[in-house]
Parts: sequence; structure tokens; C-alpha cells
Amino acid sequence: MIDPDRALELVLEHARPLDPARVSISSAAQRILAEPILADRDQPPFDRAMMDGFAVRTEDAGKKVKVVDEVAAGGVPRQAVQTGHAIAVLTGAPCPDGTETVVPIEDARIEDTEANGPCVHLPSHLKAGRHVAAQGSECAQHSTVVPPGTSVTPIVASVMASFGRTDVLVVPRARASVIITGNETIAPEEVPQGGQIRDSNGTMLGGFLSQAGADVVSTTRAPDQLQDIVRALQEAERARGDIVVLTGGVSVGTYDLVPNALEQWGATIVLHKVKQKPGKPFLFATFGRRLVFALPGNPLSAHLGVHRYISPALRVMTGRQAQASIDRGHLTAPIPATGGRTRFLLARAKILASGRRSITMLPSRGSADIFGAASANAYIRVDPGATLGLEEEISFEWIDSSDA
Amino acid sequence: MIDPDRALELVLEHARPLDPARVSISSAAQRILAEPILADRDQPPFDRAMMDGFAVRTEDAGKKVKVVDEVAAGGVPRQAVQTGHAIAVLTGAPCPDGTETVVPIEDARIEDTEANGPCVHLPSHLKAGRHVAAQGSECAQHSTVVPPGTSVTPIVASVMASFGRTDVLVVPRARASVIITGNETIAPEEVPQGGQIRDSNGTMLGGFLSQAGADVVSTTRAPDQLQDIVRALQEAERARGDIVVLTGGVSVGTYDLVPNALEQWGATIVLHKVKQKPGKPFLFATFGRRLVFALPGNPLSAHLGVHRYISPALRVMTGRQAQASIDRGHLTAPIPATGGRTRFLLARAKILASGRRSITMLPSRGSADIFGAASANAYIRVDPGATLGLEEEISFEWIDSSDA
Repeated sequence: MIDPDRALELVLEHARPLDPARVSISSAAQRILAEPILADRDQPPFDRAMMDGFAVRTEDAGKKVKVVDEVAAGGVPRQAVQTGHAIAVLTGAPCPDGTETVVPIEDARIEDTEANGPCVHLPSHLKAGRHVAAQGSECAQHSTVVPPGTSVTPIVASVMASFGRTDVLVVPRARASVIITGNETIAPEEVPQGGQIRDSNGTMLGGFLSQAGADVVSTTRAPDQLQDIVRALQEAERARGDIVVLTGGVSVGTYDLVPNALEQWGATIVLHKVKQKPGKPFLFATFGRRLVFALPGNPLSAHLGVHRYISPALRVMTGRQAQASIDRGHLTAPIPATGGRTRFLLARAKILASGRRSITMLPSRGSADIFGAASANAYIRVDPGATLGLEEEISFEWIDSSDA
Repeated sequence: MIDPDRALELVLEHARPLDPARVSISSAAQRILAEPILADRDQPPFDRAMMDGFAVRTEDAGKKVKVVDEVAAGGVPRQAVQTGHAIAVLTGAPCPDGTETVVPIEDARIEDTEANGPCVHLPSHLKAGRHVAAQGSECAQHSTVVPPGTSVTPIVASVMASFGRTDVLVVPRARASVIITGNETIAPEEVPQGGQIRDSNGTMLGGFLSQAGADVVSTTRAPDQLQDIVRALQEAERARGDIVVLTGGVSVGTYDLVPNALEQWGATIVLHKVKQKPGKPFLFATFGRRLVFALPGNPLSAHLGVHRYISPALRVMTGRQAQASIDRGHLTAPIPATGGRTRFLLARAKILASGRRSITMLPSRGSADIFGAASANAYIRVDPGATLGLEEEISFEWIDSSDA
């Protein structure tokens, strides 16, 4: 049996970022940029008024000047600002040539007489450049504004929109093929007979892989027969998945045919069996550039396999760092030592108003019991022989921090 | 001007969870359950073998017993286990009547002679109930397995699948109508002329609202004319959005017509102008049960408005707690005091291998500069007059912790 840290290392040695793909801006959310975003023009493209007010010359500080024109946002100045004159500008408008500063409307006293037309009294001190964003001050034309490797957040998407980009090169989401093995499992919408149970792993995997950055492109159900599993693998091959995920049939029993089927298909088994609980029978293989993960059929063993091995691989494949979101919190109950394997325990982490995190273990009656685990949002790791005390501060990994 | 904490309180006083809606399991991901999930039958539905091995009677400990039958996963036992007999069972199979324990295949010595047929030598000590998950031990038929208020994680989805659920009652995503005001803004795919700029707020809002739990059901561009804005609001009303978000036209300038348009439409203005930087002109109103948010047109002012006011409201509307994901980290540079308004600064938070978080301020040249903010994933708050030191541990809020 292999150590869980070494197992993760071996998986990550085979995980490579996917080839970049060009996608529309709306499909690029949360993807990683595979090209720099360059400014198509100076930003701002002109000296931009940052407040509603008056474009003036600084030498007119403390004077009364005549308002000779107005530039609306989106408009074009018709004349330059001259000494003794002001041109009204709206926030976002291009400042006229000759503008040295913009006096906000609330700092100017406006006087409108029939004889002189509109005038403004300017403050006694005017600082050059105030309330004006100079052309190119945010970024110069052709400069790199966002480097490759950046995640497409809503702000990055808005940067691309401001440059008129409609598509962009990103590291795409991965394509995943799922194979559910087992004579006893039927689809969730069927009615179980005799010893049958409804498959819950397909649903769990679909949701979890989707969150981790993969789209499920094929799902196949295969009975416990070598040739059926080989056929399912060949079908996954045709679906051109970047990863193949199997559940069930991976431990040592008579019907555990997945390792044999993988070899017959032509995969190279990299590791099989990890010194961890749950999920000991975990298997990792490669098939050309494809990564193949065979998870135990027990739902919580499968869940750990996705969290601990598939998710880090998918993060690397989608251009991110392998590491999960590690956090620290305090245990609400002690965890006694047990020997042998490294344990990964599902827990409920809660962010308290102070910013402190509390971590509560969930009751579990074994690796097939998904019911006790329904409120889990975190994993904690307990090394063999380790005892963790009440209120002890420990590291944990979020599964889903949006639900804290 | 209103204090930013009081402004948030006022927004939240008007935010209510949306009416529950029935959705398919595949659309329920990350929604909050509005009904309990009940077990449709005992789980396991029968005494389930947890290992590949032999179902036997404990009184046969240390003896050699005859293997008289086999039950595959998904199969049905044909006979009960008798003293002196073993029945082979596969992981997941129903145990035959009379099973007292399952002996894993690796703990049993198998002997297969032509004369006697297959036999197994059992270990000298057998504990009743080992490697058997008793019927109903995970949950009993009709019991509540997942309470309302739980987030539909992949595990919860798999629980529903195991009960054959195809739809479920959840607090749905919100419907949002977006109105972009301003004469100067054109759609991102158009080519700017004169003083025009491409609108980037629509893209930013669409992405941000989507992450925060709202689907944009209508987007309207309105020039700076009172009647155009009123018409856009009436259009939003017909789109039956739960929230309406406007950008631009909300400060005090000549063309800032949004407050007037809201009143003419029939909205009740709850608050206008918050003692914060950026985003001072923020306005919040209601129209019947709808929440209406008017954000400044400057992109970073709009961004703060979504993060600080709209997101918490959407969390409440979608059944969650209002509070954002608060965390603590250490500053990589001091932040000098400035007076007046509470500042909300965009920052880049990084999770170090130790679990410690570093927080780096981003360069910013004002609230229209989205380029310096492209790598932001967090907000920090600086109260008026406060100075924050190098390496000081402070609270911060994640915008997106998946990008750390």
C-alpha cells in the first residue's frame, strides 16, 4: 500500500494543463487566461472628467469665469478652454483641450444673469489635474493589462468588454467520462428489486466534477463483467474525455474486475491501493494523455477520491495550483487516535462572526453511509496514531466554502 | 450620508427568502432545500455485506464449514445460513437470513476438494455483526435524512438519487434585471466614436450576479433621459425580476436622473448616499417586493455595491446567511490613515502552504480604473482614521476564494 501523500504526488506528476481553447467571453468565467489581454487603445481614451463640474485653467482660481459650452458624457468638445472661461463637463465626458483641472459642481458657485449668461465663481485654490483622468493613465494602448494565468473574474471580464473583446484564449474545462460498475446498481429513476440499489455515485460525481472544473461528457453503467467494463472504457475513449472516472470493482473481491479491464483496454496502472481510510482501493492509471481514476463503489470512499486526487488533478489541468483551499479552525470535540491508515474525515466547518472557524465531526457509520455526511463541507486529516484534542487548532480543507 | 453598516442593515431588513420552487435534481446544485428529504425505504434496504467474504454463524468460529451458495451484489439469497455452512457474499449483496457475521475473503482459508466441494476454514474468533450493515442502520424508512435549510451539495444530491428523487423543492435563484444608463456607453461589441466608451459594467454585473445566485433575465441600455430610464424600469418590471440593478446616473450631477426616474416609476427610496469610498452615491429602493439597487457608473464603485449590498441581499433571498465569507490574514504593506469615509479596498489574498493568508493591496488610480483591480479576489475595510501596519492581522472578505 502506498502513502496518501506519495499517491497524490504520483497523480500530479501526470496532470498537465489542457491545451488552450478560444471561447466566448460569457463562457470564460472562472477559467484561466492562456493569453495576455492587451489594451486596444489608451484607457481612458481621452482626458476624462471624473466629476460633474467645470473644466477650467488653474490661473483662474478665485475668479468668476464665463461658462461658454458644455460636454456631455459621450459627447465631443467643440472648443478648447481659454483663460476666463469654463466649459461644463459631465462625469465620463472628454475634457476639452486646455483643461487644467475640473472643479466639481458642488465646489463652484453658479451665477446666471440675463446680462452675462451663466458664470461660475471658482475656489481660491485649484490643483492641476484634479478630477481629470489623463488619457492612458489607467493603461496605454498595446500594453498588457491582464497577464496569462489570471482567473477570469467579473472584473477581468469587464476589462475584456471595455476592449471590445468577444472571445478569449483560456485553459478550458476538462471533459470527463464516468463509468459506474456493479450488478446491484440501477439508475436513480428505476425501482429497486431484490438486492438492487439505486446508484447515487453518478449523481455525486456529476455534481462534484462540475464544481471541480470538468464537464461530464459520457456516463456508462457497466455490469460486473470484464468485457462490459472494457467496452465501457472503449466508449469513454470515443467520447474523447480528458479524464475517465470509474466507481466500483476496484478492490480484491471475485468481481473486482476493473484493474483487469484497464489492462486489457491498454491503460498503464500507476498506483493501486492507498494507506488511507476511506478509499483504500483507489487506483490511478493513464491511457495516453488521459488520466484514469478508479474509485471504490462505496459513496464516501468515492467522494474522498474525487476530493483528494481528482480535484487537484483537475485544478492543474484547468491551469490552477494543485492545492485545495486550506484553512485552520478549532475542533468542537476531541478525535481519538486509531492506528494504521491516515484517516480523512468529513466535517462541518462554520465561520463564526469573529472570523474563527469551528469544525464539527459528522457521525458516520462507514463508507457507504452518505446520510450522516449530508451536511459536510470540509475534510480533516488525521495521521495514524494522532490524537486531536477539544478546541485544538487544526488545518482542514474546504469542500465548499460557500456553504459555511 | 448614511453609515455603511446602517446601510447594509436597511438593505437586509427588506431582503426575504424567495418563494420555494420545484426544480429537477440536476438544477438543484448549491440551492438551499425548502423541504426535508425523507427516506423512501430503509437504508440499507437489507442487511448488506460490506466486504467480499462468507456469511456464517458465530458458533462456527475456528471450524471448517461448507460453502453451499453464493449471493452476488444485486442478487437475492436463495437460502438461509445454517450452522456448519457458509454462503459466499459479495460487497453490497444482501446477507442471507441467519447471517451473524461476514468473514472477509482474506481472513478465510479456502479449500476446494472434489470429494467435499468448496469449504472454508474460519478464524477462531468471530464477532457478531462484523462487516454487515444492518437493514435501516443508516436511516429508517420515512425518517428525515436531510433537513430543510441544507445546501444541495453533491453528497446531498446523491442522497436524493438513492431515494429515487427526480425533483425537489428549493429556494430558487433570483431573477435580476440590469439597466445600464449613460449617453457615453455603447455595447462592448460596438466601436467607440468621439467621447464614447464601451460599457464594461454589464459584463461585470452579469458575472458577479451569477456567482451571487441571480440570473440576469433582462439587460437594458438607457440614455440619460428621464423618460428613457422610466421606460427601462417598466421593462424590468415586465421581466418579473426579483431585483433591479441600475448603474450610472445616481450622483448629484445634472444628468443624474435615476432617483427621479425611480420615484416617477413608483419605487420607494430607502437610502441614498453612503459614507464609503468608493461607491458613495449608492441608492437602495423597493418596488413592491422587488429590491432596487442603483449603483454609480464607475466600475469599481459598482463592484463594491454588488459585493457589499447586493450579494448579502441575494444570499438571504436564496436562503443563506447574509454574511460574506470572512477570513483573517496579514498585510504585506502598511495602509496609511485617511479621514472621512470608510474605505473598502480591493486586494489580492493568497493562501500560503501554512494556511496563513497574505493580503496585498492592489494599485488603484480611482474608482473608474478596473485595470489595476484585475487580480483582486478580496476586499478589506479601513475605518476612517485607522492605520494598518505591515504584517498586521486583519479581517477581510473573499470575493472569490477559488482563485487564491
